[in-house]
Amino acid sequence: MKLSDIASQLNCILEGDSNLEILGVAGLDEAESDQLAFLSNPKYTSKLAITKASAVIVAKDFSSPTSLTLLRHTNPYLTFARAIELFYSPPSLANEIHPSAVVSPLAKLGKGVRIAANSVISDGVELGDNVVVYPNCTIYPHAKIGTNSIIHSNCVVREYVEIGSRCVLQNGVIVGADGFGYAKKDDGSWYKIVQSGIVVLEDDVEIGANSAIDRATIGETRIKRGAKLDNLVMVGHASVIGENTLLCGQVGLAGSSKVGRNVTLAGQVGVAGHLTIGDNVVATAQTGIPNSVEANQVISGYPAIENRSWLKSAAIFNRLPDLQKTLRELQRRVAEIERLFKKD
Amino acid sequence: MKLSDIASQLNCILEGDSNLEILGVAGLDEAESDQLAFLSNPKYTSKLAITKASAVIVAKDFSSPTSLTLLRHTNPYLTFARAIELFYSPPSLANEIHPSAVVSPLAKLGKGVRIAANSVISDGVELGDNVVVYPNCTIYPHAKIGTNSIIHSNCVVREYVEIGSRCVLQNGVIVGADGFGYAKKDDGSWYKIVQSGIVVLEDDVEIGANSAIDRATIGETRIKRGAKLDNLVMVGHASVIGENTLLCGQVGLAGSSKVGRNVTLAGQVGVAGHLTIGDNVVATAQTGIPNSVEANQVISGYPAIENRSWLKSAAIFNRLPDLQKTLRELQRRVAEIERLFKKD
Amino acid sequence: MKLSDIASQLNCILEGDSNLEILGVAGLDEAESDQLAFLSNPKYTSKLAITKASAVIVAKDFSSPTSLTLLRHTNPYLTFARAIELFYSPPSLANEIHPSAVVSPLAKLGKGVRIAANSVISDGVELGDNVVVYPNCTIYPHAKIGTNSIIHSNCVVREYVEIGSRCVLQNGVIVGADGFGYAKKDDGSWYKIVQSGIVVLEDDVEIGANSAIDRATIGETRIKRGAKLDNLVMVGHASVIGENTLLCGQVGLAGSSKVGRNVTLAGQVGVAGHLTIGDNVVATAQTGIPNSVEANQVISGYPAIENRSWLKSAAIFNRLPDLQKTLRELQRRVAEIERLFKKD
Repeated sequence: MKLSDIASQLNCILEGDSNLEILGVAGLDEAESDQLAFLSNPKYTSKLAITKASAVIVAKDFSSPTSLTLLRHTNPYLTFARAIELFYSPPSLANEIHPSAVVSPLAKLGKGVRIAANSVISDGVELGDNVVVYPNCTIYPHAKIGTNSIIHSNCVVREYVEIGSRCVLQNGVIVGADGFGYAKKDDGSWYKIVQSGIVVLEDDVEIGANSAIDRATIGETRIKRGAKLDNLVMVGHASVIGENTLLCGQVGLAGSSKVGRNVTLAGQVGVAGHLTIGDNVVATAQTGIPNSVEANQVISGYPAIENRSWLKSAAIFNRLPDLQKTLRELQRRVAEIERLFKKD
Repeated sequence: MKLSDIASQLNCILEGDSNLEILGVAGLDEAESDQLAFLSNPKYTSKLAITKASAVIVAKDFSSPTSLTLLRHTNPYLTFARAIELFYSPPSLANEIHPSAVVSPLAKLGKGVRIAANSVISDGVELGDNVVVYPNCTIYPHAKIGTNSIIHSNCVVREYVEIGSRCVLQNGVIVGADGFGYAKKDDGSWYKIVQSGIVVLEDDVEIGANSAIDRATIGETRIKRGAKLDNLVMVGHASVIGENTLLCGQVGLAGSSKVGRNVTLAGQVGVAGHLTIGDNVVATAQTGIPNSVEANQVISGYPAIENRSWLKSAAIFNRLPDLQKTLRELQRRVAEIERLFKKD
Repeated sequence: MKLSDIASQLNCILEGDSNLEILGVAGLDEAESDQLAFLSNPKYTSKLAITKASAVIVAKDFSSPTSLTLLRHTNPYLTFARAIELFYSPPSLANEIHPSAVVSPLAKLGKGVRIAANSVISDGVELGDNVVVYPNCTIYPHAKIGTNSIIHSNCVVREYVEIGSRCVLQNGVIVGADGFGYAKKDDGSWYKIVQSGIVVLEDDVEIGANSAIDRATIGETRIKRGAKLDNLVMVGHASVIGENTLLCGQVGLAGSSKVGRNVTLAGQVGVAGHLTIGDNVVATAQTGIPNSVEANQVISGYPAIENRSWLKSAAIFNRLPDLQKTLRELQRRVAEIERLFKKD
């Protein structure tokens, strides 16, 4: 594809050789001479000198000297994402209800719905226009899935769950399994509490492979518009996840917790139940959050504290043997001083 | 539903307006005026003054003044659990073997067994009376599932696994996949050890979505009666989980460990192999357990120690920069004293 | 089975009663009198005095006195693994393409391929000779699976993924779901980055139940020859896992990280993105790895440090209240000395 065509499709300003023939996109480190790379973070500017790419997407105000051909855009990373689409699109599912799919006559299907082999659509299910259901999915009774949503293979959507428009479930996702709720009986055994609530995924939510979002005991579990969840994430019953929030791989929420908007919980973070995390909070990897967190903080450790304090404490933790040695030496010196005093 | 009817069905003593019409149940915070709430933990008693609920389930000996109508019971939380069932029951599976299910003629099915679309029941499988298998499940050869157990969609029960009565597998559960066992060959590569053992789930066990319970190398992995496992839990080969024990979300057990009865391992707890955890132990979230633990303890941290000690250490950890500063100041002061002594 | 036959099949030197009739194999602790046990780790030598086993596999140069019949081999644990196979082999899948499987006419199947009930094989898929696909699997278009590989039930292999020979996917594994990649739009919402890359599993790789290996944004995610992954492991996009490396249960890698060969990451270890872990590194359970790690180290803690240092620091952490008390007492004593000095 000619670079001038790419620039035009991506709405970029082209500086340099507009006749370059581009065969694909890649990072600065991996790019070959016929590929288009990108520079989003200024700290990697020095890589321009060594990349093999012949053209690079840069910020509108990028000003370092370089002999490379440039595509300027206000958002280089987003432009790179769009560039990938010029060279690759995943294979699409056949435009049909596959004869091996088991679709209840009591389900309502919108226009252009595609259902692949061996998927099961139960009574009362509603699938909006252009919904795509890959093979081996199970959609339980009365679940609703909004227009243009994609349900990858081997997913489960449980009874009464509501999924918005343009949502994506990666493979093996379970939405709406029973929450972990039991009442203790007098003999010490557990009585299962019927989980009568639902799960709501608002529009533009994506859930990663093998993640599990539990239905509420009463009421609902809600993942708000634009939130993105990675693989193997668990969201306990009656939790609320805010708009555009990111939950990275293997994050776990116990239940009834409210996570604000634009929050990032990095990998393996754990969140206790019945607490509130404010907007824009960032928790670094493996953080354990036992209590509510004010908005706009970066937190770390377990129990979580402000990140810079934690970094200092963690650095001292690693030197605790030295600190203990210093303390013991000081004890010895003070004892010696005390001995001399007594002598006096 | 009339409150007097509810009181009668839940075996409660009613104090107040028995003619109240109740439309549902809810927590004290969320309840509307036509709903029934509950007060189990006395520390929430003050919420009675502000709840919109018109009636509340309380303990038999509850004595605080309130204008609300009361339902008294010795176990308010259990009673609440039963109250939910008066207002909600999940949709039930059609009473049939669905024609798309693939059921071996060599499988033995009890009375009232229901098998949903596209599930696969292999040779030699035994399903007890009233077993329910949702869609897209795979039951490997010679597995046995006891009466009234429920296998939700997209579950796997591997060869020779034994599941008791009234068990529930939430969606995507894998019972009996191979344990993680390899012997090192002379060239440094790994030789797979055939996992010849089984998994036994005793009666009344429930397993959460996408959890995995591995079969033993030899012998068995056993989850004892009434134990409840949450989502994304992993139980390694030859582990034993005691009666009524709770494993919360994303807990992991390495293998060959024995967990006692009435134990609670909170979210993301990790347990090393070949150790024993005594009865009634509670491990708080993210605890790492490398060694055996005596009964009746509350433990935290990694390596796990007694919870109160850990809380103290964790509090000091967060103040380590202050502690280090104090130590340095003390060094300076002692050096000054020593200098003065030398002067003398 | 006669012990002399076992010795011959396992290529062992037999010392003792070659006529023993052996009915099975077991660990030294669990073995019954008609079973064969093994002693691999010399620290368990004392168990020979109390085991009920009548014969034991030991090292070639084993020299402790014992009345038990011995099978000598240079690698006792590997020999034990092979002994299990003499007594147990899992049920095998029928040699057929099950009529309920949905196999694209555009898929290429090698000789002896078996495909079980309700599995879906899409257009352009290539299955090598003797590949076995258990029920309810979904193989997306253009995926390739090498000879003699085993895909257990309810697995997903996504488009263009390449799986080598003799690989094993335990149940519920997802290979090639989309990586977690989004570009921030000007309104704060996330734009999904098409994940155009693939996953490559080289030969002899095994993946545990419900694990998820993400496809790369561009290029590939690669699991090298002989690596073994346990259950519920997540490998982020564009990661590389070295030969014969072990990732234990619930390990998570963020993405674009390179893990060397013969590495062991124990349970629940977390690895940040864009870093390198050298060959032969061992990370103990729950370790958090935010930065690159040199080869041949044992590491622990978060942020990970050398294991012995961490052990010392962790021991002092548990005594921090004592350390703080000592420090306060010392402050008091120094203040007293200073007071006396002033008096002088």
